[in-house]
Formats: sequence, C-alpha cells, structure tokens
Amino acid sequence: MSKPSVTAALLVIGNEILSGQTRDANLAFLGAELTALGIRLSEARVVADDEGAIVAALNELRRRFDYVFTTGGIGPTHDDITGAAVAKAFGRPLTLHPEAHRILQGYYKPGELNAARLRMAHTPEGADLVENPISGAPGFQMENVFVLAGIPSVMQAMFESLRHRLTGGERLLSRTIVAELPEGRMAEGLGAIQAANPDVEIGSYPFHKEGRYGARLVMRATDPERLGLVGDEVAALVRALSEGA
Amino acid sequence: MSKPSVTAALLVIGNEILSGQTRDANLAFLGAELTALGIRLSEARVVADDEGAIVAALNELRRRFDYVFTTGGIGPTHDDITGAAVAKAFGRPLTLHPEAHRILQGYYKPGELNAARLRMAHTPEGADLVENPISGAPGFQMENVFVLAGIPSVMQAMFESLRHRLTGGERLLSRTIVAELPEGRMAEGLGAIQAANPDVEIGSYPFHKEGRYGARLVMRATDPERLGLVGDEVAALVRALSEGA
Repeated sequence: MSKPSVTAALLVIGNEILSGQTRDANLAFLGAELTALGIRLSEARVVADDEGAIVAALNELRRRFDYVFTTGGIGPTHDDITGAAVAKAFGRPLTLHPEAHRILQGYYKPGELNAARLRMAHTPEGADLVENPISGAPGFQMENVFVLAGIPSVMQAMFESLRHRLTGGERLLSRTIVAELPEGRMAEGLGAIQAANPDVEIGSYPFHKEGRYGARLVMRATDPERLGLVGDEVAALVRALSEGA
Repeated sequence: MSKPSVTAALLVIGNEILSGQTRDANLAFLGAELTALGIRLSEARVVADDEGAIVAALNELRRRFDYVFTTGGIGPTHDDITGAAVAKAFGRPLTLHPEAHRILQGYYKPGELNAARLRMAHTPEGADLVENPISGAPGFQMENVFVLAGIPSVMQAMFESLRHRLTGGERLLSRTIVAELPEGRMAEGLGAIQAANPDVEIGSYPFHKEGRYGARLVMRATDPERLGLVGDEVAALVRALSEGA
C-alpha cells in the first residue's frame, strides 16, 4: 500500500510583497523542501497586513491542508500583526510565552528588551515554539500551523528547526528534460503520453530565451520505475521531433 | 471628494511554481504596475494545474475584487487548462474565437497551425482578446478577469496591451527610508507616529545583510503633503536614534 498523500499551504503575509517592493523568496524554498519530504505544496496565498484577511485565509487553509506555513509579520513593529491574527483565528488569547520570554532575555543585553521586542514573546495560548537560531525571536506552532519569519535567511533557519515535526507521505520523484522545441510541436505527442500514463504527471513549462522558445518537461511520479519508463518515452519524442526540426 | 479605492487580485496557475522549480516573477511586476495606476493588489494566490482549484479560486476572487489577473496555463500542451477552467467558472462554453483564429493563422506558417496550437484560439464565449505582441497567441478578458500568459516577458507585453482598459482610483504615493537600525529600537517611535497619523500607512520591512539588521520604512498615502509631513517625522526619528546608537 502506498502512503497517503500529504498536503500543505503557504500563507505569505505582507503589504510589501503585494506592492511589488519586495520579492518573495519563501515560496520557492518551501516548495522544494516540502517536495523532498513527500509533502505537496498545494496552494500559496499572499495577503496584506490586515487582520481580517489573515484570519479568513488561515482558517480556510488550515482546514483544507495537512500543514500550513505562514511567513512574515512576527517582528516588533506595529505592522507585525500575525501573532494576534493567528490567536484570533484559533479563538485563543495572545499571551506571554514563558520560554519565548526567557529566550529574548538571553538574546538581548540588559535594558534592550523593551516593550516592542517583548511583543515577539507573545503567542496564542498553547503554542509550541519554533527555534530561531539566527535572530532570537522564535516562531511558533499551533496545531497544524507553523508561524515563521519573513526574512528568507531566518525563515529557512526556522524551517530546519521544525523539519523533524513534519511527517511526509510518499515522495514525488521528478525527472526534467529541457527541450529546445516550441511547445506547439510537442503538444500532441506529450498529450498522448500523458493520456496513456495517468500515474505520471507530465508538465510542460515554456521558456523564452534570446528569441528561442523551448520548454522544461517535468515528469513526476512516486514510482521510480514508472518515472523512468515515461521519461524515456518523452525523451524519445523530443529526439524524434528535434531530428525532424 | 477622493476617488474610490480600486482593488485587484492575482491568480498564478502552475504546478511548477508550487514545486519550487520556477520562481514567479509576475506578482512583483503586477504589484508595482497596478500601484502606479492607483489599483491596489490586495491578494495573490498560487494554485496547481487543477480545474477544481482554479474554478473555486477564480469565482471567489472575481467577486471580491475589482479586477482579477491570471497568469499561466494558456499554452498548447495538455496541462494548459486555464481557458477551460475560466469558461467553467463563468458557466460559458469554450469556443473557437474567430479573431484569435485569424491571429494564429497569420502567426504560423502554413501547416504549422496544428490541433494543439488551435487550442490557444479557444476562449470562453464572449471573451475579448488581449493582444500578445510577442508570441502570437492572445490572452483574453471575461468581465473583470484578465487571462494572461505565464512567461514573464509575454505577460508583461500583454499587460501593456490591456493597460488602457483599467480604471484606477486614487494613486497611493510612497516614500521609503532605509534605516540601518534594528526594528526593535524604532518600533515604539514608529508605532506612535502611525497611531497619530492613521491616513498614512507605515510599513517596516526588515532586512538582514552581512550580519547587520535594518529595515526599509515605507510610508504610503494618497495625499502628497501628508506623506511628506509623516515621512519627515519618520526621518527625524531615524536620525535621532542613529545619533544615540
């Protein structure tokens, strides 16, 4: 019996991503890491620093997916409202977390742990911390929701801290073939291979480089033998079309 | 009287973004362009090449926001299902669009317009085309939804083609101050300025570079005078804290 499929969603929180001023880097990181763990990132959302928007999105996503990751909005400034929004989504009070408090007391020099920084030691009641080896202030976990920093280096370090808490399903293996052919010439053959092999997902991701069109053909499957066979069929198709080009 | 605020959402369609194999570049482009037009990008979603997921997301977003843009999934291969999903979301049949047909007949050499490429001339019944000056196959508009290509250069060219169809609201102006200070030292002062000036949105976007922490402080408002005044207050705060550092 194959293991069940395990799904996840990402909720990116931040006006700066939506205004185009900052480019998100956490989606690509998380997508690749989760795939390697046998967890399928099935949806990502970006919402503004708006409590209502965060609460609504989080409550939908945490019911639909096995895991939810949030990034952004857990710093010390007035626009960091993720902790309060998560508390509201779970219907729990936002309280000072004793362990987070101790961590910040150890991280800052005497006198530096001001009221703003102390906000970063508050979590929804009952949360488990996620260690932040880079900049002190921890993330946290509430049930299936992991609340992480937005700065990519900090987010990635937090992900390493929580990785052992995730249980993946069957790993999706992939094979990529780069074809320097227009998609329109490969489409019929690819469609036929896909139709005959529904257990192997075939994706065609076009690119446009120096006036030439091509596509990265990505085969994904849990069975390495099937992946190999279908990959070979696709490779043969590309070869045949390239010779006839 | 101020103009009404105008909102938009982006729906990115593609497994390759969620698996981390391709990094989305359309969100940042669209966020910046819409801001300049007085349209606020309020939410972005990334969903898989899955008809149910696309239909559900699109039907929610097109009701909640003034404009919706989709990117990806309009090519000739079997995994390009955006057109069919949009038709389903609007409850319209997917039909051959005569003008799109003519465009493709002019774009391809005789004999090259095969069945797969002809799929790209199909739109939901009643759609208006969006010209694609780069690679022929057009995008399309259905009511408040614009269906665009995923390749950034093509998406951007399509956006230029449709720009005149958008009606913006009051433009949100912005001013950015880069502070080489930890957010935790500025938070109290920033919070006080924000509380006293609710008409100017103040965002603090931290960065971490070569072991130093800082933040980009972004003020946004529709009134240039108010933006200037509050920006000056924030600049004075940063100066005072830097001198006391």
